[in-house]
Amino acid sequence: MSEMFSKVAILGVGLIGSSMAHAMRRGGLAGHIAGYARRAETLERARAVGFADSLHGDASACVKDAELVVLATPVGTFASLAEEIAPFLKQGAILTDVGSVKGAVIRDVGPFVPEGVHFIPAHPIAGTEQSGPEAGFPELFDGRWCILTPPPGANSEAVEKLKSFWQALGSQVEVMEARRHDLVLAITSHVPHLIAYNIVGTADDLETVTENEVIKFSAGGFRDFTRIAASDPTMWRDVFLNNRDAVLEILGRFEEDLSILKRAIRWSDGEALFKFFTRTRAIRRGIIDAGQDTAAPNFGRTPKKDQ
Amino acid sequence: MSEMFSKVAILGVGLIGSSMAHAMRRGGLAGHIAGYARRAETLERARAVGFADSLHGDASACVKDAELVVLATPVGTFASLAEEIAPFLKQGAILTDVGSVKGAVIRDVGPFVPEGVHFIPAHPIAGTEQSGPEAGFPELFDGRWCILTPPPGANSEAVEKLKSFWQALGSQVEVMEARRHDLVLAITSHVPHLIAYNIVGTADDLETVTENEVIKFSAGGFRDFTRIAASDPTMWRDVFLNNRDAVLEILGRFEEDLSILKRAIRWSDGEALFKFFTRTRAIRRGIIDAGQDTAAPNFGRTPKKDQ
Repeated sequence: MSEMFSKVAILGVGLIGSSMAHAMRRGGLAGHIAGYARRAETLERARAVGFADSLHGDASACVKDAELVVLATPVGTFASLAEEIAPFLKQGAILTDVGSVKGAVIRDVGPFVPEGVHFIPAHPIAGTEQSGPEAGFPELFDGRWCILTPPPGANSEAVEKLKSFWQALGSQVEVMEARRHDLVLAITSHVPHLIAYNIVGTADDLETVTENEVIKFSAGGFRDFTRIAASDPTMWRDVFLNNRDAVLEILGRFEEDLSILKRAIRWSDGEALFKFFTRTRAIRRGIIDAGQDTAAPNFGRTPKKDQ
Repeated sequence: MSEMFSKVAILGVGLIGSSMAHAMRRGGLAGHIAGYARRAETLERARAVGFADSLHGDASACVKDAELVVLATPVGTFASLAEEIAPFLKQGAILTDVGSVKGAVIRDVGPFVPEGVHFIPAHPIAGTEQSGPEAGFPELFDGRWCILTPPPGANSEAVEKLKSFWQALGSQVEVMEARRHDLVLAITSHVPHLIAYNIVGTADDLETVTENEVIKFSAGGFRDFTRIAASDPTMWRDVFLNNRDAVLEILGRFEEDLSILKRAIRWSDGEALFKFFTRTRAIRRGIIDAGQDTAAPNFGRTPKKDQ
């Protein structure tokens, strides 16, 4: 692969930002990778890992001459960051982000984008439960989807270029409206995270079952929830504050469905339970067939003789 | 290791039953392993895998002369199965099970246990989302916990023997009261499964988001739920029918907690969300430190450069 941008500025060098830098290096996609972090300690940690050509504590210095600028801090910081860098953005540059919500990003960042700069929001559907500059790795986006949500009237050449860029990082790319993105992600990501956080919290609160018991016997199913509930709290706070309507809508449906299951349990309606539990297997099959998860039992955590 | 029982009868040769047979062979724990399945087709599949010395369509023939008899069918079948085999159980034999609920098993099986037979219920906290005779493997119980719930007055020699047996299968063993087991498992296993089934069902029902979208973008968190929701429907139906009170109690607490999170989202209370999301990380750490899960990001599903 070959250079797509002479300089890329990544504002925020956590899991996603550092993984982008690693993947850009793997593909030789950028002449110069500039990283920004607000805190000196984070800059130091990023320097130790060594995925950037330059590191900056000043966002406007970081974006100078960049042909691609990526907002990769928590979504709640985007408005002030956009306002700060706006006067320093290069004419013709693409400004993008990696936030997990898109409507709020267009609302917050849009007003600060200068004439002649192409603002194309994006969301790579990839991540792990870990965070920070040490958490990144080049393969994070391989085979995962990245959703672009260009605002109406966005420059189509810029959209195509960003699309090629994400493909070069390893992703498959889909383009959709921000509003639809936020609804789809509410069900595939935001509500599952909220539920996981919630059930781990419930377990932690029980005065009748000890934490030691919860930990010991977690292999019964609970441990999978704790992985999700170990994700970055700042990022997830901002997701829920910024996708409120879609999350509350999906949660409402979730609770209606749960009432039906509860009623079936209370009334010992085995047939209703069996029917419900049978229906959900097909979705799992689809996810494996689509290459979005491993078919190995327990995600391959248990060693098998033939491995 | 050496032979602990001259003959072991396993009634039900699905994931758990077949894994026990594999693990017994690995350790040379049984002189003869006899398997039972109700359906000819299941017997044929078990024969093809080849983990048993004899296979039977008649449970009473299977248990003849066995020193250890294991009920490994869905919990809902235990009462009639116990009634059927009771007259054929060997004097001094240990009768056990692997059901995910324990109070109901003592209630259903207890009355049929003949004088001179030692009934010691057990529950190995291990499994995968797969089922059937082909799903078993010898390492399933390695490092996992197995809980024994001997009824009051149980023969202590028999309890010790069963404990050694599960240790020889690879497990760590804990002894507790059936009632406590059912409460602990409600939070670490039963309610997480119900929640996973429920959210996968909600996703499947949405007329506004397509199944294709759910599958494509599942890497955002949803896919972990689908693994759990792909588990055996018959087994889980029986779990919920037989641990109703504890499950409804924990579900009630779960819903109270969810109301608080919902309120925080509706009122944009970022501080409350952040606090909640921070607290849940510690439990994850505990589970990894206790050896009950892998520390690899995404359960190691994403390849990393240093692997």
